[in-house]
Amino acid sequence: MQQVLTLNEAQNVRLTCYLYDRSPEYTNLDVRPAILVIPGGGYHMCSDREAEPIALAFAAAGFHAFVLRYSLHHVKPWPAPLADYEQAMETILAHAEEWGVDKERIAVVGFSAGGHLAACAATIAAHKPAAAILGYAVLTAQTSDQCVEGLPAPVDLVDADTAPCFLFATRTDNVVPIRNTLAFEQKLDENGISFESHIYSYGPHGFGNGGAIYNQPPLCPRAGTWMEDSICWLSELWGARTFEGYASPKFGRVYRGDKHAYLSADCSYRHLAAQQGKAQEILKAVFERVETGMRSNVPSSTMKMLEGWTLRELLPLIGFTKEEIDAFDEQLRAVKNAL
Amino acid sequence: MQQVLTLNEAQNVRLTCYLYDRSPEYTNLDVRPAILVIPGGGYHMCSDREAEPIALAFAAAGFHAFVLRYSLHHVKPWPAPLADYEQAMETILAHAEEWGVDKERIAVVGFSAGGHLAACAATIAAHKPAAAILGYAVLTAQTSDQCVEGLPAPVDLVDADTAPCFLFATRTDNVVPIRNTLAFEQKLDENGISFESHIYSYGPHGFGNGGAIYNQPPLCPRAGTWMEDSICWLSELWGARTFEGYASPKFGRVYRGDKHAYLSADCSYRHLAAQQGKAQEILKAVFERVETGMRSNVPSSTMKMLEGWTLRELLPLIGFTKEEIDAFDEQLRAVKNAL
Amino acid sequence: MQQVLTLNEAQNVRLTCYLYDRSPEYTNLDVRPAILVIPGGGYHMCSDREAEPIALAFAAAGFHAFVLRYSLHHVKPWPAPLADYEQAMETILAHAEEWGVDKERIAVVGFSAGGHLAACAATIAAHKPAAAILGYAVLTAQTSDQCVEGLPAPVDLVDADTAPCFLFATRTDNVVPIRNTLAFEQKLDENGISFESHIYSYGPHGFGNGGAIYNQPPLCPRAGTWMEDSICWLSELWGARTFEGYASPKFGRVYRGDKHAYLSADCSYRHLAAQQGKAQEILKAVFERVETGMRSNVPSSTMKMLEGWTLRELLPLIGFTKEEIDAFDEQLRAVKNAL
Amino acid sequence: MQQVLTLNEAQNVRLTCYLYDRSPEYTNLDVRPAILVIPGGGYHMCSDREAEPIALAFAAAGFHAFVLRYSLHHVKPWPAPLADYEQAMETILAHAEEWGVDKERIAVVGFSAGGHLAACAATIAAHKPAAAILGYAVLTAQTSDQCVEGLPAPVDLVDADTAPCFLFATRTDNVVPIRNTLAFEQKLDENGISFESHIYSYGPHGFGNGGAIYNQPPLCPRAGTWMEDSICWLSELWGARTFEGYASPKFGRVYRGDKHAYLSADCSYRHLAAQQGKAQEILKAVFERVETGMRSNVPSSTMKMLEGWTLRELLPLIGFTKEEIDAFDEQLRAVKNAL
Repeated sequence: MQQVLTLNEAQNVRLTCYLYDRSPEYTNLDVRPAILVIPGGGYHMCSDREAEPIALAFAAAGFHAFVLRYSLHHVKPWPAPLADYEQAMETILAHAEEWGVDKERIAVVGFSAGGHLAACAATIAAHKPAAAILGYAVLTAQTSDQCVEGLPAPVDLVDADTAPCFLFATRTDNVVPIRNTLAFEQKLDENGISFESHIYSYGPHGFGNGGAIYNQPPLCPRAGTWMEDSICWLSELWGARTFEGYASPKFGRVYRGDKHAYLSADCSYRHLAAQQGKAQEILKAVFERVETGMRSNVPSSTMKMLEGWTLRELLPLIGFTKEEIDAFDEQLRAVKNAL
Repeated sequence: MQQVLTLNEAQNVRLTCYLYDRSPEYTNLDVRPAILVIPGGGYHMCSDREAEPIALAFAAAGFHAFVLRYSLHHVKPWPAPLADYEQAMETILAHAEEWGVDKERIAVVGFSAGGHLAACAATIAAHKPAAAILGYAVLTAQTSDQCVEGLPAPVDLVDADTAPCFLFATRTDNVVPIRNTLAFEQKLDENGISFESHIYSYGPHGFGNGGAIYNQPPLCPRAGTWMEDSICWLSELWGARTFEGYASPKFGRVYRGDKHAYLSADCSYRHLAAQQGKAQEILKAVFERVETGMRSNVPSSTMKMLEGWTLRELLPLIGFTKEEIDAFDEQLRAVKNAL
Repeated sequence: MQQVLTLNEAQNVRLTCYLYDRSPEYTNLDVRPAILVIPGGGYHMCSDREAEPIALAFAAAGFHAFVLRYSLHHVKPWPAPLADYEQAMETILAHAEEWGVDKERIAVVGFSAGGHLAACAATIAAHKPAAAILGYAVLTAQTSDQCVEGLPAPVDLVDADTAPCFLFATRTDNVVPIRNTLAFEQKLDENGISFESHIYSYGPHGFGNGGAIYNQPPLCPRAGTWMEDSICWLSELWGARTFEGYASPKFGRVYRGDKHAYLSADCSYRHLAAQQGKAQEILKAVFERVETGMRSNVPSSTMKMLEGWTLRELLPLIGFTKEEIDAFDEQLRAVKNAL
Repeated sequence: MQQVLTLNEAQNVRLTCYLYDRSPEYTNLDVRPAILVIPGGGYHMCSDREAEPIALAFAAAGFHAFVLRYSLHHVKPWPAPLADYEQAMETILAHAEEWGVDKERIAVVGFSAGGHLAACAATIAAHKPAAAILGYAVLTAQTSDQCVEGLPAPVDLVDADTAPCFLFATRTDNVVPIRNTLAFEQKLDENGISFESHIYSYGPHGFGNGGAIYNQPPLCPRAGTWMEDSICWLSELWGARTFEGYASPKFGRVYRGDKHAYLSADCSYRHLAAQQGKAQEILKAVFERVETGMRSNVPSSTMKMLEGWTLRELLPLIGFTKEEIDAFDEQLRAVKNAL
């Protein structure tokens, strides 16, 4: 079933919904993951090339797909597009039961200026997506200012609660330079957020799905794999969809918890060792075993590396069991992070 | 735009249409190729698993996609489903301009019993598809009789005017044995029709798009590539879609024209040499050069092989130009084939 | 380590060995599967294009690889090449421990006339390969006669003990017509042998690994996947190689045992029901349950299909456990097949 | 032909050569590209897992392949490994004619500490490779110090003459953190060097070719594509190898020439406009047309973007022909860059 919902008539904001029919043949699919597609166009237009063909590809992979056509700059400037995003998410969540949408598995994919909006959604939205796919996205202040002056720069918004991201771009993009993607990745890394990134050797800005129908050569052939790759990445993050249900995820939303509000076993040993008070108490046995047994037996250069490991990575080396680590984790999650 | 057309209320025949929106951004795509999806189900049901997910995958590849839900056996027996197919094609052709369908590029894909219907379409329909994709299709008398007694056996219907086919199946299918596919290929070969075929090592009947969502293992992983492969095959047959238009086809609908109503340069030398009358006259220079120059210089075993080559393949070896071959072709196409 | 062994100086028979070095880093790889590469050339030459590049691709996939340069027709005619093959296998087997070759996992790959030799190896050799990969192979009497008069036709040699085969060819091959592959597959099917096959839409004879370096276009791009696909097929047949050892095979060497010397649970119900004596005794409970419970409840067309299923496929439907089926299998394997 | 050359007996430095045999069947392949494989192991060992399997994969793709086993830290410390690299390159170059090596197409691939060596080769070696593939490489001072104290940090060595790079790593590498790859990419970008990069979602340090034989799960499946991808990337940089020779490259070694010793049409407009003297003279017509015609008609935000474009990218917009641009390029290349 396909339908177009008008979210805001005056600002011409529309949500096109590509919804799967239900079937008694696959009752295991009454609920499906969803993707919200945000086309680019410099906030001056919403590109059709980054809309329906993208939605259909995710639909073919089993997603309910949605395309958001948001407020353009000359109609209603920022933060109107972010408000449109929030309204789109509210609409999807409100219809989740009716449409069969899995509320925990709604991702967003945005291109260029739409990637700017998707990155803002991933960092500061009230309704954050479970994951964000950012295609040749506008992410630095320098580029966002060239797009529309005064936009927030997503690189400055990344924090420990940012959604996991999949980024792609071409090295030779001369509209949104590769620096946008590199700077954003660095912030994701600093904040311990999970991500994947692909910078392809060559190709123009705005290549969309990479299809020959929409692009004049030259475009690096690998650029055409981002959709398949990002769909696979989502299945690793969310657990792969199988006939019987979801498999275990392959990685978590967070890679390292040092910047989180509360401590956890995902924090690095170094970070935990620098904490005062309660954390010292909880991890007493750990600190003893590391400082006595480990540090004296291991070269100092190796020790430096190991101190950067999370508790989950480090403790098995010195004989703690998964159960013990889980117990530490539970206790630590009640302790505020004193950065 | 998506819509469901009722072709026949009494027999519950419906055509679901997945139509691309037009856009000023890609005026080169005002006209698109189309695929008609025919689900299987032994003529006792129409399987949803072989309907929407298949249509969406072709849509993602740039096709207008259609799903035909045809008359079931207990509602209206054969040849009702074939009549439904004709009606579906008439509907698509009638709306071709409105919807932007390329009339010369409408393919059909059918599964199991739907593959039986698709194969009948490819052989005896009034509105033949430009190409047929046959998935674990019912093609022999033995299997079609087990499905519904009295159905025509597609293997007996293949002739020189059959549409080119792409066939796939698994070796261990115990509902529609692999013999169906093998016997049909043999007939395609005998009649000089172009085809491609993939028989995967293992997997159950009815695996559809091969996705893990719809299938319990075990299924050969290569079985999941048939959609991408068949879409690529269509682009070779039709010419690849590029930004500017269609490239040259990589192969023709016909591989060898010996069974056609009229002669051509696609006939084998052996076949042409056995013709009487007009053909002898047209090809006098060819026969001379082959029989004098070639036959005496080439080992007889090689000569036997070369006699099986088409005129197009053989003549460049003995110095005829493309222009001369085209001229022979034009003259031969006016001469009836005396089999 | 790479070395060339002279198997027969007078006939210029050589075995080039591409052997992996052993390493303390992967003790789980002290024993590896092996591939014996048999290049084509009409028994008039051994093509280098079907030798080293093929061996290196299998080596890259973790195989010890061997290239056999066998007796050419003008030096020593058939059956000399088959004797060379036997000698090559004896050499590999004799050095298996020294080189780290897994004796149970030696496959053969042959091209064109080399495919003829590989198919003879798979059917009538004393040292049969565990699997055979046949590329645009000479398999019918008509084509083998055009190659060298008097060669045996592999299609006539297939029986219930033939090795499992992976076949590939292009539809437009005008040197070894596609009929060779189709006729061989039909015989494999009739004899219940496992196989996989890929007939690609277009491309010339002798395309080897399909690489652009060795081929002038046009060649169907899928033709370049046969190596990866056949390597995957071997891993399905043999069990996938993992860090810890071999996983379970995905399918057996035999698909249906009706033509074997002894009965088994891989025989079809129909075949077993037609046996006299001992088999009747063993399967008494089965026959009763099928003939009373099943036949009366199932439409006769479905029953016809089910009678074609193997015992392993059929018995779970009527409540027999895996253990019971295994017990039947063990008993049946002591009973001669009365065809 | 395979052989092991001892480069330095005392330091146990060896070069293993995997050389293609020549053949009259492919005279177009008398000269082939080459890859020098540098295994990792923290300068404490040379890992076999990053040696022969990698060399064989490149060999399968048509390369002459070489593995360098270099001086280990405890035998002879840095810069001994770099000297070993130079000696390996000298050896290959000295035998180039004999072995059929294309001197302009020798790439290097290094892993972990071997990636450190490869990156030093790409930046400061006397015999720079034509391209460098860096796998989970040690590139920052922090990590190289943990490896062996006092090593140079490749991130500090990047300049405008650095070889183009292909980088890959996994997000969850806890031995060589992803920061190494990110920081190096940033330097490549700042210096205008061409590159490609892939950061896969999850997987351990040291996954080599990604094969299941060498790795215990979990490893992101995309991590196994880096070899195929990097080989394709080399063909884009060098021109694809075809039957007749090399096609045109898809991108150059340099993306933007602002940091080069001499000016060129690969410099950005902004950079050229800031130059004094000779450059002003050469580009007088350009500056006029941009400053009069272009700047007044284009929004200032767009103008800022366009000033960052290279002359080659910008001039076609205002009507200069390829010939005119080439003429500017030739003149500019004689002018020193006044940074």
